[in-house]
Amino acid sequence: MNEQLLGGKPTAEPTKALETFENPNSARDFHIHMEIPEFTCLCPKTGQPDFAVIYLDYIPNKLCVELKSLKLYMWSFRDEGCFHEAVTNQILDDLVSAIDPKFMRVTAKFYVRGGIFTNVVAEHRAAGWQPQPYVELSQFSAQSNIRG
Amino acid sequence: MNEQLLGGKPTAEPTKALETFENPNSARDFHIHMEIPEFTCLCPKTGQPDFAVIYLDYIPNKLCVELKSLKLYMWSFRDEGCFHEAVTNQILDDLVSAIDPKFMRVTAKFYVRGGIFTNVVAEHRAAGWQPQPYVELSQFSAQSNIRG
Amino acid sequence: MNEQLLGGKPTAEPTKALETFENPNSARDFHIHMEIPEFTCLCPKTGQPDFAVIYLDYIPNKLCVELKSLKLYMWSFRDEGCFHEAVTNQILDDLVSAIDPKFMRVTAKFYVRGGIFTNVVAEHRAAGWQPQPYVELSQFSAQSNIRG
Amino acid sequence: MNEQLLGGKPTAEPTKALETFENPNSARDFHIHMEIPEFTCLCPKTGQPDFAVIYLDYIPNKLCVELKSLKLYMWSFRDEGCFHEAVTNQILDDLVSAIDPKFMRVTAKFYVRGGIFTNVVAEHRAAGWQPQPYVELSQFSAQSNIRG
Amino acid sequence: MNEQLLGGKPTAEPTKALETFENPNSARDFHIHMEIPEFTCLCPKTGQPDFAVIYLDYIPNKLCVELKSLKLYMWSFRDEGCFHEAVTNQILDDLVSAIDPKFMRVTAKFYVRGGIFTNVVAEHRAAGWQPQPYVELSQFSAQSNIRG
Amino acid sequence: MNEQLLGGKPTAEPTKALETFENPNSARDFHIHMEIPEFTCLCPKTGQPDFAVIYLDYIPNKLCVELKSLKLYMWSFRDEGCFHEAVTNQILDDLVSAIDPKFMRVTAKFYVRGGIFTNVVAEHRAAGWQPQPYVELSQFSAQSNIRG
Amino acid sequence: MNEQLLGGKPTAEPTKALETFENPNSARDFHIHMEIPEFTCLCPKTGQPDFAVIYLDYIPNKLCVELKSLKLYMWSFRDEGCFHEAVTNQILDDLVSAIDPKFMRVTAKFYVRGGIFTNVVAEHRAAGWQPQPYVELSQFSAQSNIRG
Amino acid sequence: MNEQLLGGKPTAEPTKALETFENPNSARDFHIHMEIPEFTCLCPKTGQPDFAVIYLDYIPNKLCVELKSLKLYMWSFRDEGCFHEAVTNQILDDLVSAIDPKFMRVTAKFYVRGGIFTNVVAEHRAAGWQPQPYVELSQFSAQSNIRG
Amino acid sequence: MNEQLLGGKPTAEPTKALETFENPNSARDFHIHMEIPEFTCLCPKTGQPDFAVIYLDYIPNKLCVELKSLKLYMWSFRDEGCFHEAVTNQILDDLVSAIDPKFMRVTAKFYVRGGIFTNVVAEHRAAGWQPQPYVELSQFSAQSNIRG
Amino acid sequence: MNEQLLGGKPTAEPTKALETFENPNSARDFHIHMEIPEFTCLCPKTGQPDFAVIYLDYIPNKLCVELKSLKLYMWSFRDEGCFHEAVTNQILDDLVSAIDPKFMRVTAKFYVRGGIFTNVVAEHRAAGWQPQPYVELSQFSAQSNIRG
Ligand SMILES: [Ca+2]
Ligand SMILES: [Ca+2]
Ligand SMILES: [Ca+2]
Ligand SMILES: [Ca+2]
Ligand SMILES: [Ca+2]
Ligand SMILES: [Ca+2]
Ligand SMILES: [Ca+2]
Ligand SMILES: [Ca+2]
Ligand SMILES: [Ca+2]
Ligand SMILES: [Ca+2]
Ligand SMILES: [Ca+2]
Ligand SMILES: [Ca+2]
Ligand SMILES: [Ca+2]
Ligand SMILES: [Ca+2]
Ligand SMILES: [Ca+2]
Ligand SMILES: [Ca+2]
Repeated sequence: MNEQLLGGKPTAEPTKALETFENPNSARDFHIHMEIPEFTCLCPKTGQPDFAVIYLDYIPNKLCVELKSLKLYMWSFRDEGCFHEAVTNQILDDLVSAIDPKFMRVTAKFYVRGGIFTNVVAEHRAAGWQPQPYVELSQFSAQSNIRG
Repeated sequence: MNEQLLGGKPTAEPTKALETFENPNSARDFHIHMEIPEFTCLCPKTGQPDFAVIYLDYIPNKLCVELKSLKLYMWSFRDEGCFHEAVTNQILDDLVSAIDPKFMRVTAKFYVRGGIFTNVVAEHRAAGWQPQPYVELSQFSAQSNIRG
Repeated sequence: MNEQLLGGKPTAEPTKALETFENPNSARDFHIHMEIPEFTCLCPKTGQPDFAVIYLDYIPNKLCVELKSLKLYMWSFRDEGCFHEAVTNQILDDLVSAIDPKFMRVTAKFYVRGGIFTNVVAEHRAAGWQPQPYVELSQFSAQSNIRG
Repeated sequence: MNEQLLGGKPTAEPTKALETFENPNSARDFHIHMEIPEFTCLCPKTGQPDFAVIYLDYIPNKLCVELKSLKLYMWSFRDEGCFHEAVTNQILDDLVSAIDPKFMRVTAKFYVRGGIFTNVVAEHRAAGWQPQPYVELSQFSAQSNIRG
Repeated sequence: MNEQLLGGKPTAEPTKALETFENPNSARDFHIHMEIPEFTCLCPKTGQPDFAVIYLDYIPNKLCVELKSLKLYMWSFRDEGCFHEAVTNQILDDLVSAIDPKFMRVTAKFYVRGGIFTNVVAEHRAAGWQPQPYVELSQFSAQSNIRG
Repeated sequence: MNEQLLGGKPTAEPTKALETFENPNSARDFHIHMEIPEFTCLCPKTGQPDFAVIYLDYIPNKLCVELKSLKLYMWSFRDEGCFHEAVTNQILDDLVSAIDPKFMRVTAKFYVRGGIFTNVVAEHRAAGWQPQPYVELSQFSAQSNIRG
Repeated sequence: MNEQLLGGKPTAEPTKALETFENPNSARDFHIHMEIPEFTCLCPKTGQPDFAVIYLDYIPNKLCVELKSLKLYMWSFRDEGCFHEAVTNQILDDLVSAIDPKFMRVTAKFYVRGGIFTNVVAEHRAAGWQPQPYVELSQFSAQSNIRG
Repeated sequence: MNEQLLGGKPTAEPTKALETFENPNSARDFHIHMEIPEFTCLCPKTGQPDFAVIYLDYIPNKLCVELKSLKLYMWSFRDEGCFHEAVTNQILDDLVSAIDPKFMRVTAKFYVRGGIFTNVVAEHRAAGWQPQPYVELSQFSAQSNIRG
Repeated sequence: MNEQLLGGKPTAEPTKALETFENPNSARDFHIHMEIPEFTCLCPKTGQPDFAVIYLDYIPNKLCVELKSLKLYMWSFRDEGCFHEAVTNQILDDLVSAIDPKFMRVTAKFYVRGGIFTNVVAEHRAAGWQPQPYVELSQFSAQSNIRG
Repeated sequence: MNEQLLGGKPTAEPTKALETFENPNSARDFHIHMEIPEFTCLCPKTGQPDFAVIYLDYIPNKLCVELKSLKLYMWSFRDEGCFHEAVTNQILDDLVSAIDPKFMRVTAKFYVRGGIFTNVVAEHRAAGWQPQPYVELSQFSAQSNIRG
């Protein structure tokens, strides 16, 4: 990193280490959704930057992933060469290693390349875990709280 | 609260007490959806304000939650320090205590922090309660009743 | 009603009586969806006007509800005091009495009160009626037929 | 038709006869979706024009419906008096007679009348035909291919 | 028209005659906007149906155009052969003849033909009439009054 | 009003009297925009309910219009027969009488009638008042503060 | 072109010749807007296909451009190598040669290349022609005529 | 503030003091737009929470407002009683005092109250400052960089 | 191809040969979604260009399809005559031959013809392959990462 | 850059050198709009990644900026520390140096920081250059070319 320009004093560093905290209600299967729009890595073939938005959907077991370390973890890919299909599976593997969730789905939506848009979705389910049958209700979309 | 500025005469107070009214049709499993866009609390780590929109989906049993007291209940978090995952489960617990519904789903959508968006969804199902199989129909989206 | 201003000659009257017509294909389970954006009643607590959009989804049996009388029926609530949860169930009960459908779902979306949005959904299923298993297909959203 | 104004030389005529062509892959259950925004008929009560958008979803058996004749078929309703519920079932019956599909769903969305919007959905399933269990995947919405 | 099917009793007839009513505030330059989605005519070359949405923006002088007769006027094109550019100018001419407005803009948005979308806009300004300089304010877009 | 059903204790009454408060910064030309989605009156011809959304844009002089009384004022039309063009001009006249603004624009968007959508826009400018030349900047649209 | 596969009988040919018809109201400055979503050419550097949507806005003088020949003209670029900036100016030049309009604006929106979206806008004004001062009115956006 | 719950160690404090930094290009009139969705204060009449989104558009002179202190400044209203019209003018006054911009526009969009939506817009122009005439170009709207 | 105009040096050629690469995680059933907006072929009846957007959803087995060769494969249809229903099935067959996926769905959305929009959806499932039961979670829609 | 992971063979390098090509029609003032969604740099204070979308609007003089080198130029900021306001002005300065346009506007929309969204807009006008008076026409928004 160009630390000259930055004055040599970064307040944080990219890291592969994911911090966790205790699930506040591990008796209940509840759902955490996180949208991480600031993902970039390098194309392993051309060395040029790639960009994606990463979505995380999981049902925690004993641990949850800490937001700030998740941001630093995503930063850790900035200078790595990554294939779309492989990096999505890698993120899932790393998160599963860190928090061993009941269920986790990673969705990566990559910016257009060659005029083609690619999204990749990978899931992990804990052995023996079964989702509760979903209670299907009428759905209502959210809107802005203001006008104009 | 700065009661000087307000003239010392607030017309209502935040409260943890949820008022209820009798379900007008407890023989029928029907669905109430409420969207509460005015939720704010404090970040327990930094003390700074956090914001969210809270959604309530429930099938009442003997009682429904009263709208005005629901608003005052949401207000009660304004000066509390709350983690995203914990406060969503807490709201669910408080509402279940108050009205003992057949089913309840609380969805909290928090404002962006560290560039990451977090939503949390938690559900309660009454012991022995089973949802009717959902009648799947073609769905049609709503639109504005006016033009322009 | 202020009939002075209107010249004493209303061409129609609000009514609780729902007119019906014969189902043109009662051998087939088909689905009728109606959106009724012009619903208003009074708040039983404050006497002030309330507003909602009502949606009707039903599978007719021997009878269908006639559009014009449905409009007059909705008008009949204009000067009545109605709780959100109760009026949605009442509309369902009245329509079921009138046409005895195989299935009916009434969805009421009320205008914001106290900063909170409330929707209510209630359903009726004829005794012994079973929906055909839904044929799930890829879905495509409709768009405007013109540009600009 | 006012052939004077048109110079007496229409290049096509409305018709009830639906042309068909051979299904290019009848071994595979595949899905054809057609949106027909240019439907108009007359209100049987008032004689005034009615308008609708018609959607066709079907799984062909031996035959597919030919696009151009489908357009002429839809034209054939232009001067006919049609009730909403009846004409939707009639279109389904005519298309089923013409191509005997494994599955067909006709959706008619009528323009607003009396302030009320009406949609009608009718389906046909071939005797003994069963849909394959749907493979549920994450869904991604389409967007414009350009900006601005 | 197929009056057999309609029982011979149309309640209204298409007409070129536009009814008017007195401008309730002719001292003030105010703006009336009307959107007329139910326009259809015939293609003069092929005899096949064409469809459009017509928009009217005008500043009335002594007279306003009556809504119901406007609908019957639009109906009068149903069996006429009309070129896109000509019919838009014709509608403008007819409306100007009927109400002699200070200003009128007719916008016609035609359904796609040959894969190409065509809109036509024509305006009339009364001799000597000048628009007031427009007061430019921040603009806010409208949204639905309900959620979901 | 059906005061029986309402228990005879309405907390507020519809009124033509608009309450005002002092402009907090009358030295500065600033812009207040209000959207009032809950407007209903009666059609003077048929006696049936009409609905509209009313928008207010004004630059106050010495006074501003108080929100609660504005709501009660809009309620006052609930049982009156009103033509679209006339009522929009009437609302403008009443508001101008109450607060004598530097500038006011009233926009009324009426629900569809006869398949036609009608909007009416009327403005008042104080004698001798000139708007500051508008500072044109790039414009950016607002979006939801949450995801999903 | 692969005429074998097509049976050797194309019903139309791409052409640079633009057909025209007489302006039905050349005394009035009116505006024709056309959207042509089916434009493709080849990248002069790589030989690979490029895609764009072309928009035409013009005020005709004595002639209008005929829709069908416009389609064939756009087709004529299918096998040509074209730079974005040059082809937009070329289309404008060809159309101006064909119909000599009072005003014409060509807007080309190209599909993404290298992750970058490019639009090009070019205009022609007839010598001595002046646009009428635009009458600025409140603007209202169009919406679908149906629900769902 | 409930410092017990927060562990007594807030990392930041609300403040009326706005920090600034030097304009990196004060020779050029350029435009900074900021959207601040996390504004809440108290209603001076009822003591209940109010919410708004604040937008800032300005052309800096010698100084720009620092983002982090702007956030703390907005936080400073959390326990104050504020009228909509007054607080918008107050924010403008405070920002003008802090950075003395060439131009500034503050737009506040308040959450619905009494079913009515209110936005307030206030501007400051430095004495003698004139905006450059705006270069009007075709405008193109932004879209998501991903699909789905 | 017109190689004269292009200088005789295309950097790539259309091809029916689809290149593949090894699935980075063949032990896991994961989902790849690709959107290919740049598809054009010829109408076999008229010889005129047709356009479509192609969507690919698949669960790879041992191989994935390489993005660049997929683009060249789609290009290979540019000069071929193709019926809508047949070409969709052909693309599915070719892709299945190339990578033998566990599951694949091809969706083709064709541009409007004769005023009618046609979409075709075809699927392949590997013999003996069963999808995991889908874990149904609350769904949240994505939005732009920026404002305006 | 991690060239190990990338196999040491990047096909392109980030660069501050902008390549240009000759304006194909320098006699005409035409407008080029480019949207560059893949911009990232580092926060000079924290060293953490920042993200933005950059928009370019310009009227070329003798030269245009080449798309591919523009991408490499944007890449050159990836490891630099940049303040929002400064980098937007820097990009404008660099582009003006490279192609000396008649007019250029750079718009940078940064991802949210501290819950606040920031956009910056800077312009350059060649000495003595005057824009042609804009021809104001009715505007029509673009839509998808397909359905669903
Ligand atoms: Ca780097
Ligand atoms: Ca690309
Ligand atoms: Ca579902
Ligand atoms: Ca507080
Ligand atoms: Ca943030
Ligand atoms: Ca009444
Ligand atoms: Ca479904
Ligand atoms: Ca599903
Ligand atoms: Ca006819
Ligand atoms: Ca404007
Ligand atoms: Ca402007
Ligand atoms: Ca070719
Ligand atoms: Ca304008
Ligand atoms: Ca309210
Ligand atoms: Ca067509
Ligand atoms: Ca403009």
